[in-house]
Amino acid sequence: MEKIVHAIQDEYSADFAWCYGCGRMNESGHHFRTGWDGERTMTIYDPAKEHMALPGFVYGGVIASLIDCHGTGSAAIALHHKNGHKIGDGVEPPRFVTASLQVDFLKPTPQNVPLKAVGTVEEIHPKKWKVHTEVYANDILCARGEVVAVVMPSTFLEKENS
Amino acid sequence: MEKIVHAIQDEYSADFAWCYGCGRMNESGHHFRTGWDGERTMTIYDPAKEHMALPGFVYGGVIASLIDCHGTGSAAIALHHKNGHKIGDGVEPPRFVTASLQVDFLKPTPQNVPLKAVGTVEEIHPKKWKVHTEVYANDILCARGEVVAVVMPSTFLEKENS
Repeated sequence: MEKIVHAIQDEYSADFAWCYGCGRMNESGHHFRTGWDGERTMTIYDPAKEHMALPGFVYGGVIASLIDCHGTGSAAIALHHKNGHKIGDGVEPPRFVTASLQVDFLKPTPQNVPLKAVGTVEEIHPKKWKVHTEVYANDILCARGEVVAVVMPSTFLEKENS
Repeated sequence: MEKIVHAIQDEYSADFAWCYGCGRMNESGHHFRTGWDGERTMTIYDPAKEHMALPGFVYGGVIASLIDCHGTGSAAIALHHKNGHKIGDGVEPPRFVTASLQVDFLKPTPQNVPLKAVGTVEEIHPKKWKVHTEVYANDILCARGEVVAVVMPSTFLEKENS
């Protein structure tokens, strides 16, 4: 199984690291971690046994979750790069939220295989990025997704504290 | 909090009741349950504390999962009705899988509020139905979704046993 060595989610500030999908502070979550291989973004995830649609096949909601956080993570990597930084250089990256999520389930996704989400990122506005993702199991393309991610509004944390 | 009395997922055969989203046999899952209020389909779900995007807001992947299983459940209700049956009449309903899932996240979704997914169903082919869903928290529309659901191919269980 390939590994993501440097993940953008490792660099989010602790306040922004509670996401059930990709937050390192959330003990119960999936802990999706998204890296950069020089050309594309990549998230590798091994679903748990209970994450099934039927025995033998991965639940679509978990695949959608993978595409969702891979999308916000990929957008964060792209804007961080645009700002002249790279993962692990000690500068906190931007944090994105999901405006929309589209998933096409192309094939039943087998269990007991690590899933690999691979992404390309397109800037559609300085604060709004589109991420195109393919999810592979054993090099078989099982799902294709698209996320529109926007820079997190400052009101998110303000609301929490109000 | 409103309750779903008769849910279509209660009627799936045990073989098809393992879904992490809506399977009653899956001890770790969300146990989404979808009913019919006479006009629309409805799924009510109270996310767990850990299902957060940030503290105070529900994780989008859980909302996508709700829309996903609400979609397949709604399609099953619609085809069951078309076949002359209703939930709880003792006849096993059809079982759908998700071909595609689209979610627009309209507002940050507050935690500690039951979510209500409300659906309308449109037949686009005898085995392919489109479900339009709105997700409300405290009567505030937080997300809108669309699922294309198809009748589960028989190969699903055959593959499992092969």
